[in-house]
Amino acid sequence: MSDINHQVGIKATPEAIYELLTTNSGLSQWWTNDVSGAGSVGSIIKFRFNGGGPDFAVTQLTPNKSVIWKHVGNIPEAWMGTNISFQLRVEGDQTFVRFTHSNWKEQSNFMAHCSTKWAVFLLSLKEVLETDKGKPFPNDIHIDHS
Amino acid sequence: MSDINHQVGIKATPEAIYELLTTNSGLSQWWTNDVSGAGSVGSIIKFRFNGGGPDFAVTQLTPNKSVIWKHVGNIPEAWMGTNISFQLRVEGDQTFVRFTHSNWKEQSNFMAHCSTKWAVFLLSLKEVLETDKGKPFPNDIHIDHS
Repeated sequence: MSDINHQVGIKATPEAIYELLTTNSGLSQWWTNDVSGAGSVGSIIKFRFNGGGPDFAVTQLTPNKSVIWKHVGNIPEAWMGTNISFQLRVEGDQTFVRFTHSNWKEQSNFMAHCSTKWAVFLLSLKEVLETDKGKPFPNDIHIDHS
Repeated sequence: MSDINHQVGIKATPEAIYELLTTNSGLSQWWTNDVSGAGSVGSIIKFRFNGGGPDFAVTQLTPNKSVIWKHVGNIPEAWMGTNISFQLRVEGDQTFVRFTHSNWKEQSNFMAHCSTKWAVFLLSLKEVLETDKGKPFPNDIHIDHS
């Protein structure tokens, strides 16, 4: 099994970041503009990109510290069985977001694409808080021409 | 052992990308502006960031297809024993760059930082070819405030 790991330091409080990771209005500012279902543990968040997209069950929430999701449903197929974790850590005047998309079956080209794309979206999350405007889908940075 | 994986699709020929991965003038357009030593297999490339930085030995070159480096020296310490690979693959009117920084001893916060930072630099590589201007250090996108 393999994991995607990322980390960004954001000049913002963990409270402000946690809000962007746990609410429809927050998530829609940096990943995709079409998000529904975000809520407490057990809720299923539906992220949509032109109609299709992944569903994640919220499995653990520690306010202002940790958010863990489990992929449910079957889109994308390679995400089945994977988990996503956001760990927040304050250091000085910034909060680090430590991101993991874990439990990939193989280090495929698609996994590599997703790794780069997660970096793009975490930079978008950082921009929401530091410049007041993120780049959620469909305004995300494109990393291929397919 | 763990790996960092990335992939970007670039509207450019594999020849143009290979040049940016194998020459001092090419590498200095997207990773750091201070590069010396790039050459054929066996050469040691010195990448410098405000004076310090990693040395990589060029271990395999397949023109316009593949570039493999082995970390030599001891900066950063966590990179000792790691390898970097760029595999080029043409599909339609783009060339995919499949990047791997492999053989990390642990999935540390520093590894996660480097993973995000590699995405930043691969986007810079893409920009050199698609907008004619990359963002090598010291003009790179910063992902923390340390």
